[in-house]
Amino acid sequence: MSHPIRDRLWAILDVARPGDRLSRGFDIGLLALIVLNILAVIVDSVASINRRIGPALNAFEWFSVAVFSAEYLLRVWSAPADPRFARPIWGRLRFMVTPMALIDLMAVLPAYLPMLGFDLRFVRALRLLRIFRAAKLARYISALRLFGDVIRAKREELVLTTCVFALMLLITSCLMYFAEHEAQPEAFSSIPAAMWWSVVTLTTVGYGDVHPVTSLGRLLASLSAILGIGFFALPTAILGSGFIEEVEKRKELRGRTCPHCGRELS
Amino acid sequence: MSHPIRDRLWAILDVARPGDRLSRGFDIGLLALIVLNILAVIVDSVASINRRIGPALNAFEWFSVAVFSAEYLLRVWSAPADPRFARPIWGRLRFMVTPMALIDLMAVLPAYLPMLGFDLRFVRALRLLRIFRAAKLARYISALRLFGDVIRAKREELVLTTCVFALMLLITSCLMYFAEHEAQPEAFSSIPAAMWWSVVTLTTVGYGDVHPVTSLGRLLASLSAILGIGFFALPTAILGSGFIEEVEKRKELRGRTCPHCGRELS
Amino acid sequence: MSHPIRDRLWAILDVARPGDRLSRGFDIGLLALIVLNILAVIVDSVASINRRIGPALNAFEWFSVAVFSAEYLLRVWSAPADPRFARPIWGRLRFMVTPMALIDLMAVLPAYLPMLGFDLRFVRALRLLRIFRAAKLARYISALRLFGDVIRAKREELVLTTCVFALMLLITSCLMYFAEHEAQPEAFSSIPAAMWWSVVTLTTVGYGDVHPVTSLGRLLASLSAILGIGFFALPTAILGSGFIEEVEKRKELRGRTCPHCGRELS
Amino acid sequence: MSHPIRDRLWAILDVARPGDRLSRGFDIGLLALIVLNILAVIVDSVASINRRIGPALNAFEWFSVAVFSAEYLLRVWSAPADPRFARPIWGRLRFMVTPMALIDLMAVLPAYLPMLGFDLRFVRALRLLRIFRAAKLARYISALRLFGDVIRAKREELVLTTCVFALMLLITSCLMYFAEHEAQPEAFSSIPAAMWWSVVTLTTVGYGDVHPVTSLGRLLASLSAILGIGFFALPTAILGSGFIEEVEKRKELRGRTCPHCGRELS
Repeated sequence: MSHPIRDRLWAILDVARPGDRLSRGFDIGLLALIVLNILAVIVDSVASINRRIGPALNAFEWFSVAVFSAEYLLRVWSAPADPRFARPIWGRLRFMVTPMALIDLMAVLPAYLPMLGFDLRFVRALRLLRIFRAAKLARYISALRLFGDVIRAKREELVLTTCVFALMLLITSCLMYFAEHEAQPEAFSSIPAAMWWSVVTLTTVGYGDVHPVTSLGRLLASLSAILGIGFFALPTAILGSGFIEEVEKRKELRGRTCPHCGRELS
Repeated sequence: MSHPIRDRLWAILDVARPGDRLSRGFDIGLLALIVLNILAVIVDSVASINRRIGPALNAFEWFSVAVFSAEYLLRVWSAPADPRFARPIWGRLRFMVTPMALIDLMAVLPAYLPMLGFDLRFVRALRLLRIFRAAKLARYISALRLFGDVIRAKREELVLTTCVFALMLLITSCLMYFAEHEAQPEAFSSIPAAMWWSVVTLTTVGYGDVHPVTSLGRLLASLSAILGIGFFALPTAILGSGFIEEVEKRKELRGRTCPHCGRELS
Repeated sequence: MSHPIRDRLWAILDVARPGDRLSRGFDIGLLALIVLNILAVIVDSVASINRRIGPALNAFEWFSVAVFSAEYLLRVWSAPADPRFARPIWGRLRFMVTPMALIDLMAVLPAYLPMLGFDLRFVRALRLLRIFRAAKLARYISALRLFGDVIRAKREELVLTTCVFALMLLITSCLMYFAEHEAQPEAFSSIPAAMWWSVVTLTTVGYGDVHPVTSLGRLLASLSAILGIGFFALPTAILGSGFIEEVEKRKELRGRTCPHCGRELS
Repeated sequence: MSHPIRDRLWAILDVARPGDRLSRGFDIGLLALIVLNILAVIVDSVASINRRIGPALNAFEWFSVAVFSAEYLLRVWSAPADPRFARPIWGRLRFMVTPMALIDLMAVLPAYLPMLGFDLRFVRALRLLRIFRAAKLARYISALRLFGDVIRAKREELVLTTCVFALMLLITSCLMYFAEHEAQPEAFSSIPAAMWWSVVTLTTVGYGDVHPVTSLGRLLASLSAILGIGFFALPTAILGSGFIEEVEKRKELRGRTCPHCGRELS
């Protein structure tokens, strides 16, 4: 039993294959709408602009929600066109729990929640969730997969250095709490407060809102900074080398296409 | 039909070939004038010096404009000496749109605009444009080509990481706006304002003019800093490895010369 | 003469071999207790929480000391089960000076000192020493050995760069003391005070609590920052490359086991 | 004509060869004296300590000057023991202009200048010059030669990136002067003042004493920071890879000795 309309719709909604101009046009339109949504969220937060074009932004919001909702429903309906989701009910349910489908759902769901009667403060927080519509971009930016692959390839090393970083954070913040608590009872009020100092120092951001003032504190801070920064460089070195390796791999695959679906391998 | 004067003039104006001592002398003179122009712009901005030697700086400015204008006109006139710009009219026009010719034009044009009667404030801004005369140095620093080549070789990776950096900037600034807007309505007045915080933090500059004060804000800022700095290191690693590769390539070419024009290949 | 109870106890206390479920359960329980101890120290420092659940934290502290003390004594008693510590007296003494045994001792000893009648201020400092119970984690995180190996492999380079860093710290702080002492007699009161500036600058933390204000100071600070940061990057590069090398080595050993004790080699 | 006393003295003063225990003892004594001199300069700057042990520090200073002066004179006298400085007058003069001999002279000369009757303020500045006695350490730290070799091997790349860094500094400070001069006429009073901002930002130190406040200034500062930091990473990458290469080279030479003088090659 063939479903020509469903199959064509799926092809249009999915990322366009080379030559499918209608699907490509649809992709570009959706991309533009996502980018406009991001800009709308940014512009919406600027009080002076919001006062002037607030109603237009609201109208645009409802238009976007309508389009994204229709897109989501059509994607679910046409999902069985993909062999992975072939069965009518079970296939659609399996499609609905794929990461991209969940992102699509999250992009529209918060817009419907106020209808259920939540208070206004909560609604304002929900408005900000619209920024996660940016995640819909992930479908179109194949480069993000590259980052995913780098992180997966260097998983162990990153977990390991994260553990060491956490230990370092713990030890430096305890030492500084011990050294500075009496001199600065507010800035170093507790170990969690001292952790803020540790993060700001070990990442070398150094806002200057908390810094040691005693001699002991400065000595410990100096040692923490010198040791800690050396170790903090490790995840950076790991990600950097992983990224360069992964890019080399892809450059070798460039131009070759999959013999099954005809898409590029890289 | 040969043009011995035009061809000789072109050779003198162009970067000197080995052995052409007149052309070399001209290059050195022009280089010195450009460096002096840069120094003049810097010195001009210091009020105490400007008060004392203002007239001398003005005179030097007019001398420089005269020399650079003559240089530009002679370059355009003698351009057909180069086979690429051989045709009298069309060749000269094609020369005029080469990047270096446009830079030469931009180096003198702002000096003539005040004659057209703009207001003084605008004129003062134009005076600062003189700093772009530094771009004329590009003709003599062959090393800048190296940087151009590195960027071209790593084009894709840089675009990719720029995209990810932009997304990261967007997400962190939205989160911080959400967390800090109520506690600090001025520092985090809008998402674009929060972006200033994001840039200052993700680049680890950390001036300290804006920093989170709430617990949630500090938690989000810590996560942003740790994650963001890791990713910010990628363009650095890419540029670094690209630079080292490119330098290795040139070291192999060192000493070899082009069989056609006789210049060094590296 | 066999000691089945002692040998079994040693196996349980030691890190579990694959398949030994009782030993594994004991490991997990001890790990959980260590992590809870770390959390207790952190929570203990937050005044508002401490006021509410102080007695519970105290009870937990005594429970932990009891468990860790029993663990230490049983480890010492069962040590001869290990061929390295086979002799009854001498073997146990040799076990007691291994780094891990010393850490286990340090984890409980401070809790007993107050009984000897020290004043309260000292006791409060001792309470913070509890954070070093985190060091007991070292037995279970095999990854920490990796860091030890990296540091051992790059020992010479790290000593060398540490020397250069110390010299750089010395020279920059002397120069800045010379340049800024008169303009800021408090911030740059002495060379050790200027060293605080040097550390904060060369690590690029830059809190902003001390910074040059004179022209000479700013010039020297600029040169120090540019030169110093370049050299500060060396230990980072060394650690980074050492870490990547060491990880590669271990990936090759992955899956292979020691023919003698049956444990994994990596 | 042999000079057994002169030759033996030269051997003792020079860095000890393996087995020469008297020379080794002399080296250690001189090293200790240099380190004590550095500590004396540091301690001397701390007002509270200076008040108490000032006379002792003065006595130690005169003792050091006497020892270093004798060392210098004996080195010059015994120089002809080295084949490079064999001729009695000319050889000694050639020795006196070697870098290490000049450092030895600079270590004592400032102590004699006050005798010529300069004013006291100048004398206090001279006292600080004593810190350059640290340069005498260079004779004993063979590792410093490694750094010299790295810089020599990467000479071109470092010059090149320094040029680019200077251009970047120039352009960003001009842009920021243009954007911020009116809003902050004191912090951005002139282009040299804006350069201080540029150095503090491009090195990511970020004290926070000068930072942009206008929207245009913040936009330009963001772009400067992102671009600039990428390029600032290049010298770091170059030094790092150069250092690792140089260390590899030396590890291969380790253990081998020169067939002529019998010293280690690395």
